Parts: sequence; C-alpha cells; structure tokens
Amino acid sequence: MRSKDDFLKSLRDGRKIYYRGKLIEDITSHPILKIAALHASKLYEYSDRIYEDSKLGKVSKFFKVPSSSQDLLDRHKLIYDLTLYCNGIFNISQAIGSDAIFALMITAKQVDRKYGTDYSKHVENYLQKVAKEDLTIATAQTDVKGDRSKRPSEQVDPDMYVRIVDVRSDGIVVRGAKAHTTQSAVSDEIIVIPTRAMRDSDKDYAVAFAVPANAKGLKMYVRPIDEIEGNSSSVLSRKDYELETLTVFDDVFVPWDRVFLFREYDYAGTLAMLFATFHRFTALSYRSATMNLYLGASRLVAQVNGIENEKHVRDDIVDIVLYKEIMRSSAIASAVYPVVMEGIAVPNPIFTNVGKLYSNMHFHDVVRDLIDIAGGIIATMPSQEDLDSEEGKNIVKYLRGSVDGEERVKVLKLVKELGASSVTGYLLTGMIHAEGSMEASKIELFRSYNYKEAENLVRKVLG
Amino acid sequence: MRSKDDFLKSLRDGRKIYYRGKLIEDITSHPILKIAALHASKLYEYSDRIYEDSKLGKVSKFFKVPSSSQDLLDRHKLIYDLTLYCNGIFNISQAIGSDAIFALMITAKQVDRKYGTDYSKHVENYLQKVAKEDLTIATAQTDVKGDRSKRPSEQVDPDMYVRIVDVRSDGIVVRGAKAHTTQSAVSDEIIVIPTRAMRDSDKDYAVAFAVPANAKGLKMYVRPIDEIEGNSSSVLSRKDYELETLTVFDDVFVPWDRVFLFREYDYAGTLAMLFATFHRFTALSYRSATMNLYLGASRLVAQVNGIENEKHVRDDIVDIVLYKEIMRSSAIASAVYPVVMEGIAVPNPIFTNVGKLYSNMHFHDVVRDLIDIAGGIIATMPSQEDLDSEEGKNIVKYLRGSVDGEERVKVLKLVKELGASSVTGYLLTGMIHAEGSMEASKIELFRSYNYKEAENLVRKVLG
Amino acid sequence: MRSKDDFLKSLRDGRKIYYRGKLIEDITSHPILKIAALHASKLYEYSDRIYEDSKLGKVSKFFKVPSSSQDLLDRHKLIYDLTLYCNGIFNISQAIGSDAIFALMITAKQVDRKYGTDYSKHVENYLQKVAKEDLTIATAQTDVKGDRSKRPSEQVDPDMYVRIVDVRSDGIVVRGAKAHTTQSAVSDEIIVIPTRAMRDSDKDYAVAFAVPANAKGLKMYVRPIDEIEGNSSSVLSRKDYELETLTVFDDVFVPWDRVFLFREYDYAGTLAMLFATFHRFTALSYRSATMNLYLGASRLVAQVNGIENEKHVRDDIVDIVLYKEIMRSSAIASAVYPVVMEGIAVPNPIFTNVGKLYSNMHFHDVVRDLIDIAGGIIATMPSQEDLDSEEGKNIVKYLRGSVDGEERVKVLKLVKELGASSVTGYLLTGMIHAEGSMEASKIELFRSYNYKEAENLVRKVLG
Amino acid sequence: MRSKDDFLKSLRDGRKIYYRGKLIEDITSHPILKIAALHASKLYEYSDRIYEDSKLGKVSKFFKVPSSSQDLLDRHKLIYDLTLYCNGIFNISQAIGSDAIFALMITAKQVDRKYGTDYSKHVENYLQKVAKEDLTIATAQTDVKGDRSKRPSEQVDPDMYVRIVDVRSDGIVVRGAKAHTTQSAVSDEIIVIPTRAMRDSDKDYAVAFAVPANAKGLKMYVRPIDEIEGNSSSVLSRKDYELETLTVFDDVFVPWDRVFLFREYDYAGTLAMLFATFHRFTALSYRSATMNLYLGASRLVAQVNGIENEKHVRDDIVDIVLYKEIMRSSAIASAVYPVVMEGIAVPNPIFTNVGKLYSNMHFHDVVRDLIDIAGGIIATMPSQEDLDSEEGKNIVKYLRGSVDGEERVKVLKLVKELGASSVTGYLLTGMIHAEGSMEASKIELFRSYNYKEAENLVRKVLG
Repeated sequence: MRSKDDFLKSLRDGRKIYYRGKLIEDITSHPILKIAALHASKLYEYSDRIYEDSKLGKVSKFFKVPSSSQDLLDRHKLIYDLTLYCNGIFNISQAIGSDAIFALMITAKQVDRKYGTDYSKHVENYLQKVAKEDLTIATAQTDVKGDRSKRPSEQVDPDMYVRIVDVRSDGIVVRGAKAHTTQSAVSDEIIVIPTRAMRDSDKDYAVAFAVPANAKGLKMYVRPIDEIEGNSSSVLSRKDYELETLTVFDDVFVPWDRVFLFREYDYAGTLAMLFATFHRFTALSYRSATMNLYLGASRLVAQVNGIENEKHVRDDIVDIVLYKEIMRSSAIASAVYPVVMEGIAVPNPIFTNVGKLYSNMHFHDVVRDLIDIAGGIIATMPSQEDLDSEEGKNIVKYLRGSVDGEERVKVLKLVKELGASSVTGYLLTGMIHAEGSMEASKIELFRSYNYKEAENLVRKVLG
Repeated sequence: MRSKDDFLKSLRDGRKIYYRGKLIEDITSHPILKIAALHASKLYEYSDRIYEDSKLGKVSKFFKVPSSSQDLLDRHKLIYDLTLYCNGIFNISQAIGSDAIFALMITAKQVDRKYGTDYSKHVENYLQKVAKEDLTIATAQTDVKGDRSKRPSEQVDPDMYVRIVDVRSDGIVVRGAKAHTTQSAVSDEIIVIPTRAMRDSDKDYAVAFAVPANAKGLKMYVRPIDEIEGNSSSVLSRKDYELETLTVFDDVFVPWDRVFLFREYDYAGTLAMLFATFHRFTALSYRSATMNLYLGASRLVAQVNGIENEKHVRDDIVDIVLYKEIMRSSAIASAVYPVVMEGIAVPNPIFTNVGKLYSNMHFHDVVRDLIDIAGGIIATMPSQEDLDSEEGKNIVKYLRGSVDGEERVKVLKLVKELGASSVTGYLLTGMIHAEGSMEASKIELFRSYNYKEAENLVRKVLG
Repeated sequence: MRSKDDFLKSLRDGRKIYYRGKLIEDITSHPILKIAALHASKLYEYSDRIYEDSKLGKVSKFFKVPSSSQDLLDRHKLIYDLTLYCNGIFNISQAIGSDAIFALMITAKQVDRKYGTDYSKHVENYLQKVAKEDLTIATAQTDVKGDRSKRPSEQVDPDMYVRIVDVRSDGIVVRGAKAHTTQSAVSDEIIVIPTRAMRDSDKDYAVAFAVPANAKGLKMYVRPIDEIEGNSSSVLSRKDYELETLTVFDDVFVPWDRVFLFREYDYAGTLAMLFATFHRFTALSYRSATMNLYLGASRLVAQVNGIENEKHVRDDIVDIVLYKEIMRSSAIASAVYPVVMEGIAVPNPIFTNVGKLYSNMHFHDVVRDLIDIAGGIIATMPSQEDLDSEEGKNIVKYLRGSVDGEERVKVLKLVKELGASSVTGYLLTGMIHAEGSMEASKIELFRSYNYKEAENLVRKVLG
Repeated sequence: MRSKDDFLKSLRDGRKIYYRGKLIEDITSHPILKIAALHASKLYEYSDRIYEDSKLGKVSKFFKVPSSSQDLLDRHKLIYDLTLYCNGIFNISQAIGSDAIFALMITAKQVDRKYGTDYSKHVENYLQKVAKEDLTIATAQTDVKGDRSKRPSEQVDPDMYVRIVDVRSDGIVVRGAKAHTTQSAVSDEIIVIPTRAMRDSDKDYAVAFAVPANAKGLKMYVRPIDEIEGNSSSVLSRKDYELETLTVFDDVFVPWDRVFLFREYDYAGTLAMLFATFHRFTALSYRSATMNLYLGASRLVAQVNGIENEKHVRDDIVDIVLYKEIMRSSAIASAVYPVVMEGIAVPNPIFTNVGKLYSNMHFHDVVRDLIDIAGGIIATMPSQEDLDSEEGKNIVKYLRGSVDGEERVKVLKLVKELGASSVTGYLLTGMIHAEGSMEASKIELFRSYNYKEAENLVRKVLG
C-alpha cells in the first residue's frame, strides 16, 4: 500500500499554494504548513484502515461503498477512531472525498437514467483510480456566493459560483472560487460539487468534477495558522490541525471523464443534499471524537485546580457528556435506519440533521463549561517565552493548584488552547458552519420531515 | 390468548381502590376510572403482540427476554407502536412489569451466586406464570421517602420505605407505601422493588417481591382525574389516560416463592439501577411516540390559525422534531450497544441516561412551542357547555381561523388539553420526574461514565 | 370614596354574562364567579390607593397620569404591592384601563392636531368620569382575528375584527368580538382599542371607544374556571383568580363622546403600540410580584421535602430569583428612562419590551424549577376528597417529609396548583401570550431599536 | 489637570514588567504594549471627566464618592461612555481603583469602630492623593489560590495568597501573587485587597494596602498579546486592548499609612464582597457598552452578506439587544435602589449580581449569534499578508457580498477578530470569570436574597 512518505512526496507536484502572501514551493518543508501535511499523512500510519475488496483487492476502508447499517456503523467507528488517533483532530484525507463519491454515484445513476448520460462510468472509474492509488481527496462545495440574497446567475460578478466558461471537445473550462476547502493544499485530488439547488438560468453553475491539486489555473490561499504562530504555548496545534483554503479556479480545464455533472441543473440540489447528508454523518463521527478533548481537558483541569468534586463542575462535565453522546446517538441511529438509494446506504437524513443541528447549537455551551472549570487564568497566564525564561521558576511557583505548578501549567496550556485562544474562535465557527449552517439544517429538517405519523395520530384523536 | 374481556373481568376481584374518598367496588364500571381500565385493555386488542416462545409457546412480546440488539430494537418499536395505537398515551400494562422482571433476573443470579439463595427460580417461575396467563403488571418502586435528607432507617416514622415487619415460615409481612404507582389499580399484579441503594442498617428495607392487586392489606388511592372532571372540553383524556396511586402496604403477606430479595442490602442499589435502565429505555420509546401528539397538534393548529408558513412557527416545529428524534436516537443507540449481563441485553446505560436526561430537560420547551403557535385562546376559550348551548353558534362564529369555527374549535380543544390544562401540568411533572428525576440521571451519568478514553487522549496530547 | 360593597352592588346591572352555557343573573352570588368579583373588589380594600389630585380631588392613584420617572416608579410599586395584597394575583381593575387611557390621551392629541378632531376632550372627560366615580375598567384589544395571514378587511367573515357597521348622528354602531378580555365581566367599563396597524382599506376597523359593561348588545362568555371546579384541593384560586371572556359586540351603540378613534387608520398602530407599552410595563410589575408565589413555594416545598441544602435545589431557586429580578430591573429602567409624549411619561419601550420578551421566554423554566424541587407527588397525590375521608389519616401518614404529613400536604396542595394543575397550563399560556406574544415583542424590538450607537462605534473602529 | 503625556511619562519609573520572557525597560515605547498604555491614557483625553469637588477642587469624576442614585447613574453613564470613547474596550484606569476605595472607605469605618484603628484616615488620605494627582490605579484582588479546595493557611506553599511576612515599626512586608491584574503594568498605583472571607487561622492573609507600580520587589508578568501578534488582520486590538499581569509581591514593603486592613480577618469577607459589588456594577456598565461592538458588527456583516432581512438574522440581532439591555437594566436598577452604608451609596447587590450572572451566562450566545450571521469565512479567510500581496486583488474579487470585496473584507476582519480569533477566547473567558465567576454570583445571590416577601406571601395563601 501507499506509504506515508509516498504521500508526502507526491505533494511536491508544483501545486500553487499561497501562505501569508507567499507562494509555497514545498509545503512539506514549510515549518507551519508541514504539520497539516503530516496530519494528513497519519492516515497512512493508521493500522486498521485496509480491507479486501472483491473487485479492487486491498483498498482503504474509506472507499468501501456502504450498502448496509453495519457498513455505516463501521464507517462511523473508522472516522471516530482515526480522529482519536490524530489527537482528536479530524483527518479528512479520504473521508470527505468518499462522502462526495457516494453522493455522485447516486446522482450519476439518476442523471444517466433521465438524460442517457454516462456519468456513472466516470464516477466508477474515478473511484477505482483513487482507491487503487490510495489517494487523498479534498471536496470543494461552498462557493464564495457573493450577495447571499441573489441566485448564482443574478450576481454582479458572474464568477461568485464556480461555473462553466468554455466547452471544448476534450472537456470543459471552469472559473470561480470555493471557500474554506479543508486540507485541499495537502490532498492529491479535489472534487468540486454544487453548493445548492439550481434553476435553468443557473445551469452553467450546475457542474461537478474532479481535478488533481496541481491542475493548471488552480490557486489555493491558506488561512493564517494563528493557532501556532499566534500562541507560543499551544500544544495540540503543533501536533495536528487542519488547514482551509480559498480555492480559486482560474479557467481550469477538466477532461470529460472527470466531469460528473454538466448543466443538468435539476440534479444540483439533490447532489448538494446527498453529499451534505453523507458529510454530516461524517461530522457527527469526528465531532464526537473531538469532544474527548474538551471532556478530558475539563476533567484534568478540574483535578489540577482541586475542584473536581464541586457540584457545578460535575454539572459542566455532565453537560459535555450529553453533548458528545447525543452526537454519537444520532450517528448510530442514522446508520441503523439508512435510506437505500441506488443500492447505497445513505445515513438517515432526519437523524443526521437532528444530530448535526444539535451539534451546531450547543458547542458554545461546551466551551463555556470548560472555561467555567478552568478559571480566568487561561486568558491571563504568561507566555511560553516567560515560562522558558529565568523568571519561569517564579511564575510556575505561583501557578500550582492541587498539583505543583509545572504539572498544572502543562494542563493549562492545552485548556487555554481549547478555551481561550484562536483555536476556540476557529472551532466555534467551525462547529456552527462547517458541513452547513444551523439555518440550513433547520430548513432541511422542516422540509424533509414526514409529519404524517404525527398528523394522523392527532386526526385519530380528534375523531 | 387472553381477551380484553377476560382481562377486564379479572379486575373485579375485591381489590381495595379508593377514589375521591370512596371505595370503588367495580373499577370497570366507574364512569371515569373505567377509561384507565379500557386503556390498559387495549393491549389485548393490539394485533401485533404475540410471538412463539420455544419454551412457553405463544406469549406476549413484552415477556421476551432481550438477548440482542435486535430484541431491544424490536422492544423499542413495540412500545412506540403500542403508544401510537393508544392515541399517544403509554400503555404500561406489560411494559413496566417486564422491565422489572428483566432486572430481577439479573440480580437474582448475582445474589444466588453470592449467597446461595434461590431467587432465580422464583423469578423464572414468576415470569412463566405472568407470561402464560398473559397478566398485566404494575411496578412500585418509589417509596414515599419521608425526609429526603435521611436514609430509610433514620426516618422518624420507620414506614417511610416499604419494609419487612415480620418473617414467617411461609413468607414475609411488609408494611409501607409506594408513591405514584402507574396503572396499579387496573393491573393484575404488582411488583415491588427498592428505590435506592441500602446499607446494613437499612436491610429490612432491602426487599423485592410480587403480589396480586387484590392482596389483603393492599390499598390504592387513585389521583383525581382532573383532566376529565376538570375540563369539560377534553378530548384525548376521555379516550386514554393512565392513573397513578399512592399504594399502601398495610401488613401485606408475601409467600416465599414471590420474594425476590430479602435483606441482601448490597444488591438493592444494583436492582434499582438495572430496573431504572430498562425502564428509561421504555420511557424513551413511549415518550417519543407521545411527542407525536405535540408535533401533530402544532402542525394542525398552525394551519387552522393560518400561520403555518411563519418562520417562528417553523422554528417551533423543528424544535419539537429535535426533541422527539433525539429521544429516538438515544433509544436506538442504547439498543445497538447494549451491555449484556447474565445473558440479558441491558440497554446501554449511557445512551439511555443521556436520552432520558435530555427528555427531562426539554419537554417544557415543547410545551412552550405548542403554546406559542396556538395563541392565548387555549387559555381563555369558552367551555364545552357554552359550545353546546344555544349561544354556541355565536361563539363558534368568532373562533374561525383559516378554516371555519367548528373545525378550528375541534383542534383548539385538543391543543388546550395538551398546552393549557391540567394535562399540561401533569405531563410537565411526569416528563421531569417519571422514571427518575433529572438529578438522578445526572448523578448516574457522572458516576458511570467511562472518562478513560477522553482522559487518555488528553494525556497523549500533553505528551 | 367608593366602597367594596358599592362596587359589588353595581355589578348587578343586567349585564349579559354567560358561564358554562348559562346566563348568569347575578355574578356576585355565583359560587365560582363571585371569587373573581371579590378579587376585583379588593382594590377598594387596599389601604394605600388614594392621592389628592389638584383638579379632581381624592382619586385612585391608578388614574394619576404619569409625567415623570418617579410617577412611573410609583405606579410600578402600586401594581407590585397590590398584586401581593391579592395573594400574588394581578388586580387589573384600574390598571389596564388607565394604561389604555394614557395611550388614548397621547394619540387623541396627535389625531386632533392632524385632523382637527375633538378626541382629547372625549378622553379627558372620560378620565374625569372614571376617576371621580372610581370605576373599574377592562380593556379589550385583541380581536378574534380569523385567518392570521389576512388583514381585517380581507377576512371571509368581515366581523373578525371589531368594526363600525353604522354611523348615526348620535354615535356609531360596532360589531365583532374581542378575545380574552380580562375581568370584563366584573368591571364597570370596557375600553376598546385596535389590535394592530391598519391601512386605508381597513379603516372601518380603526375604532376606539368605551362602553359600560351592561351596554345593549354586549355579551361576555367566561372561560371555565377549571382551577377551582377541576381541582378540589386548590388553595390559591379559591381566594383569587382572574377571569377572561370572549367579548362579543352584537351591534353595540356608542355615543360620540365615548368614541376616541374613528376611521383615522393611520393612528391605529400607534395607539395599539402605546397601549402595549404601558400595559407591558404593568405586566412586568405584576408578573414580578406573582413570581413570589413560585419563589416562596419553591423554598417551602424544599424545606418540607428536606432538600433545601441540595445544590440543584439552590440552583433552581437562584434561577427563579434571576427571572423575577430581571423583570423588576427592566420595569425600573423603563421608568427611569421614559419617553415623554404629549407631556405623558411613557415607559421606555426598549427596556419594557426587553423585560417583556425575557418574561415570555423563561417562565416555563420557573415552572420546571418548582417541579424539580417538588417531586412527582404533585402530579399523583390523592384528592382533597380522599384527604377529607376516613382514609385521610392513612394517606397523610405517608405524605410526611421533614415535617409531618399534614404540614407537608398543605404546601403540596399549593405547589400542585402552581406546578401540576390547570393553573400551570393557564399561566404558561398567559406568560407567553398575555400583553402580546413573543414574536410581537421581537418584531417591535427589532424595528424600534436604535442601532446607530452600535453601528457608529463599529464604523469608528473600522476607521 | 494631568495630561495624557504626563501620565505616559510617569510610566517610565523603573517598574518591573516582563513580556515574553524579557524585562521591558519602557513600556510606552514597546511596539505592542504601548497600545495598552495609550489605551489607558485615553482617560486623559476624554472631555467630560472632571467635576468640581467642594473639598478637593477639580478632580476626576471617577473619584466622586457616590451618595445617591443619581451619583450611581452618573457613574454608570461615565463608564459606559468612556468605553464607547475607547472603541468599546473598557478603560479601567480610574474605575477599578475607585471601586476599591469606596469599598475600603466603608470597611475602614467599620473596623475603626470595632477595633479603634485608624484606617479611615489612611483611606481618606489615599483618596485625596490619587484624586489630586489624578492617578490611575489597578486593583489586585484574585490570589493565585493554589489548591482551590483548601483555605489560605492550609496550602502546601504558604504564598498562594498574598500575606504578611514581616511586621516592622514603619510598615509591613508582603509576599505572594495576584492573578490577572488588569492594566497593572500601565497604572500608577496598585491597590491590594483580599479575595475571600478569612478565619482566625488565615489572619496573616487578611491584608489590604496600596503600593506604587514601581514598588521594590513587585514584578508583573504580562500575558501574551496574541490578539495582535497572532492575528495580522486584527483591527480593534491595534487600537485598544487591556493587558493583564500575574503580579508577584516578592517581599514588598508597605508603609503603615498605605495599609488599610491588617489581620482584622473578620472584615476580609465584607471588603471582598463590597469591592465585588462596586466592581460588578462597573462591569455591567462597560460590558453593555462593549456589546455595541457585537451588535454593530452583526448588523454590518448581515448587510455586507446581503442577509439582513433573513428572519434568523433578525432573531440573532434581537438576542444581542436582549443581552445588552438586560445588563443595562440591571445596572440602572442597581443605581436606583442602592444600599447606603456609612453614607456611601452601594449599588443594589441583588440587581447587580442578577445582571452580572446573566452577563456571565449568556455572552457565549452573543458570540454564536455573530458567527451565525457572519458565516464560516471568518475562520478561513486568507491573512492580511495575502491581502497585501499581489494576489490580494484575486482574493478580494472573491470576497464580495452585497458590496464589493474591499468593503466586505474590512467588516470581515473585525468580525473575525470578535468571533473567530484569540479575542473571542479571551472575551469568552473574561465574560465568565472577570469580576467573579458564575458560581460566585450564584452563591452570593442565594445567600443574600431576602426570601421573606415570597415566603410570607405563600404562608398568607396557605392561611
């Protein structure tokens, strides 16, 4: 199988990555960005990731197309466990790409059936390629959108959603930009899908395809990694973090066999929603794993502060448990009662969106719980440079709790990172907007819920 | 199999039931209480309730001892569906009794192993009896408790927890009272189990047993059914409701073969908690079904008010969906990952308590959602007597919404019952305290949660 | 001054009151409804209610037109204290009427100025009359509304909002119905004002006036008093409660000098909102007083249960304190920073609506707090008839807590009334909808808030 | 009066300030720390800050000892307005010091009366000095505390609370450390007071005093200013922020006339609580002003995103208004109903703690509101360096909303700072812990609330 080094080597392929105003020649040797690359590469270290496919032989479990509840439960566990392996930080390397491929497999069949197209074969071949070559894939869905009150074709600048600008005999040319594409800069491939339903007038925006990360005309602008550069005492982010990019398609060519949707605007919404469902299931899986960071940190900081038996501390802990386990319950229920489409088990959209919405709505409570236990010191403690200086001893003397200062500071540094640093702001935003906003989940839940059971019951009672 | 009429007939057995200060000779002919009896009897009407047991032949599915996830998922569905069948009102007839029996089967084996007792046989024989005779069973757990800050043996009046007052060659004599025993007055049998952990000094209170509902010395005081007698326009309660009693054991004799715990105080806590786990799983199952009443009523009243497209109404609806489906998710996850003890699949206690606690904490939000949609009219609308009088027409004229007055009033009556009547108060209390208080679930969750995964992750990060 | 008996006598004036399908000849002798009349009459018993007006001599403080912060603070205290005097139940007798008169005084001047009308004199004379005669006044604002998605003039039945159906030389004739008019059946007078802004097409609905409660064609349908008739152990409601009526205007004649708005549709919204502001200030004042019932009951039931030192009980108590005192803070701030219009001090609309919205949003938490402390017994305790029977002693034995059963039962009866009875449902609905729904306050707050300070600050920062 | 430059000059006085491991010679010329100094100095620019004291002549309004509601309302407005002047960031320069002095004036009189001491004169003289010289003052209350489950005298290291280590004829010597002392490094003076109630065994910890910031043995370790150094696109923090220090007293000498409490342990608790009450009133005043940043930013980002009319956006805005105005209401009510002690008007402790607790509990909701409106872009947008590079134009093209990219980016940068940066984490922690934790306010509220009104009402109802 592909090794960690194979993977890292392949990232040096001429891709156009910009960081803090500079083009980065080799991301794997950049002092900050290489951490994201190494994080991605942990996939290849993870021991329990390969299965034997009847057709393709030994391939990554991520590329196993789910056809049953058990497959989905296994996928939930795979994502949860790999997140734990990566220190509580989601490893998206093959997760989001496979989410997109599963969604594409379903819509491809539907479109082929209606329009006599050949997308199923394109998708199937693409899956075989990435599975065999064991590639990592980013998925770019959210367009930059411009004026949110207007549709794609109504924008002042027509490039606010990725669109087809040219159609050639050998493929298409696309232009536009996608926002916050996770780990794109350290992936082999990028799949692009629409972010919303489209109308006839938007049909040039109804496009799905895949390109290698070094495709000509593709530019990626990485967000500043303030969690390291702006926090000299950070611990977790120096081990694992994920980057996001503004991903610009500056007239990028895509050959036909990598095109999965082309102006069939009536399927853009279905594709967007199917991907969202798979990906929200993935989100519930990694988020519940990530919550172990908050839960464990809360427990440890309560202990080093000497307050682990206080009732309000226990209430905080229970609140975090509740948050974590409601996400897990929803993921499990989604797996147990899937919707099967074109032979593929789609996580139950109701349970998935319920868990997802709950997850959006209450992470800030978890942050409050942790801060409540930690105390104000996480906002005001001296810097790592202070601790490392000759004054360090004097500072550490005064930071003792129920344990000595050195041990408490070690915990406080992580708690600060989780509760009172740029990571906090980053995660708060991510937990609300990643994999779709609260409002998106509310609209979807309201729209798709089957009220018949409830309404029939009430009608029966009313006689 | 036993018929509805067999069951109803058997309730005329000389049992001592008091209602509003009077001894009720025949509960099945009392104008108000018979509704509870008929509600109980709906079990026997329900079509899909029998399975073929290898040993006992055709018996009620409720008595199927769960040994797998599928058994628990089936049990969840059985309770959910039977609740819908009974107009959204829980049918406890064989549910709570089997919850208790499963818990007793586990502790009986544990006690037998430690103390060489014979309880397993007692429980096994009891299960065979109730299964073969297709009996209904109430379970009395919560003692009246007296001063909550004192243990059973420390109370001013020693009868505040049910206790052994005499030991005879043929059995024991018990005294005390249990609070809010659901449907006891319309059950064949009553199982009694301890409500908490006990110490050596409390050992006379460590007792579990079963008695028929007409046992000598047993008195049951039924709560007032204000939902019917105090609301002339009530709809649902005239079809289905559950009664509770204060259940007094005035020196009741219990033969040895019906005794399941006798002074083995070190198992009282385990028994109490195991029953609670089974019963909270049952609670999640019926509560999520009951929520269809609130969801359906919200939808219908929004329509007849002409506000179904208002955003705040949609938000209310989504909130109720969230509440209902989080309970269901938790039940499903509890079933999928059970804890197997003595060969019996116990619903996962973490998921069960998480769902249960969430259920306690947020039902009042559901009530608020419904009221928000309904409007103040549910508190101030004229009575059924008004509607039935010759002024009725004038009133109905003014109660029209997007539909005519008659149709809207029909819906409003049910919504008033759910949101602005004594049913509201009763349910609010039940959703907080039935199957254990919020605090009980918090304590149990905090105590039993396995923090190792989270703490180990954090320790790994801290390096 | 007018005495309690004078007042009660005057209620026997041929008014048309219906209760449970029957016309009530004398409301002061009806076993249930007389309680509402006696409640209203407590105004006349209250010692500290008269002041010396420079023009009118000794009159009720309720009719003092507020012109300063101190006047509003005094009015807040008057309503708060009178509520306490009436056992925590709001006494609306002269509160809501004066709220309406103050609003009418302002709009009358505005309309007179624009249209050369004479309403100010009408309102002034009316105020003098009610002040001199010391009358009680109900105010009917909320129309029955029909289809909420349609304007008054768009309804299928044109009578869904009170409207002018005839204009005569001596006055106007009105038809329609108002919902939930508090204490109308036991008031001397009824003021009618519009419930919303109107357009030109709705101008026949833009009408304000006053009629005596026995006006010809006026019919009042009282809601069922289930809090007494449906709860034999109720305590509070047997002393004090307020009734509401569906108030039907079946072609009621109003002489011109009692007309305060007549087709000037462009002032309907202002009038509705000004009344709402005064009345929401009143609401904050009585609601914070009413909360003493929940706070005191929580404290006492914690004590009789023996759990007053439990941390979760303390948290519940603090939560109720927070709720009560945020309402009081808002009322005080509203008084301290009034908006002065036409010389009248209007409570600050922002603080008033903030307090009002908070009050709507969180009363259900207070109910949860009380229930959490009380325990399930408030839903399942035997009836008053049981307690009064010869079984009573046996029951009371088992209801002891940290005090004997008799004392605890006394407390439990009130707690049941507040937390698990039809009063609970009634109050939950009232706390959400009375004085305007949550949505109404949100819309008003969003619309009327002055964002300039905030936006200017941000613009300054952005440089 | 003292000028801004006078003030800045005086900061170059040999004080021992450490930042990132280095001793800072001149804080006013340090590129990062000078911002905090300039922020402090804005006090001297603020136009409306001087009043004529009958005794002291022209002095800062901050040093006006409040004796009436109007004084407290004026103080509230002074703090609110000065916060707005300083771009929404609290200017603590004379606020916290005067809070401490007012508290000391009260306890000094109480202690003098009981013990015949002379503290009142010490405090009075100190007030005259700081008022006449127009000094800025930090207040150090929160000790580093060590093991939170142990009292000061029980700690492993006796220096975990500031304590008296030597008593000399001319004064005392103190040792220990205070955590998170705001703006200490840029203040003239530091007042030290106890953080909690003390017992006889803790009497060496019952000490209050004042020292100049350059006192020998005093060392201040400034927290890292990550909001600037770790966020190249930050806007607000480059204009205004406050620093905190770990403040170490390494055997600092205090002459007797600057000692305000010396082993009178029975007054440590009173002093701590009185200061907390004054300071929480201050907190409500500045926090409500700071909220204009969140409110204004929410409004502006909604506009530039083109979603200002979305209902969920309006709900978010109303939620922020609610938060801000409840804090203001509480402050106003605290001022209107003060408790007068020793002639000094103390803000009403109930209203103060109610507002404070609400403020702690719900700021994280405000953050969620802002993020909800802003979208994920605030977490993933490219850095300032990117915007400044030649790629900047390409990036800005894709960041347009309802306005062009340049204008939107300007807003997004501030919104990121408030919602998705280290400022977010810092403020979340501050809003929970500054001026006392949630638990501290709960305990204080529960303890000090007068339940008699509520309990008497309930007893009256129970008859």
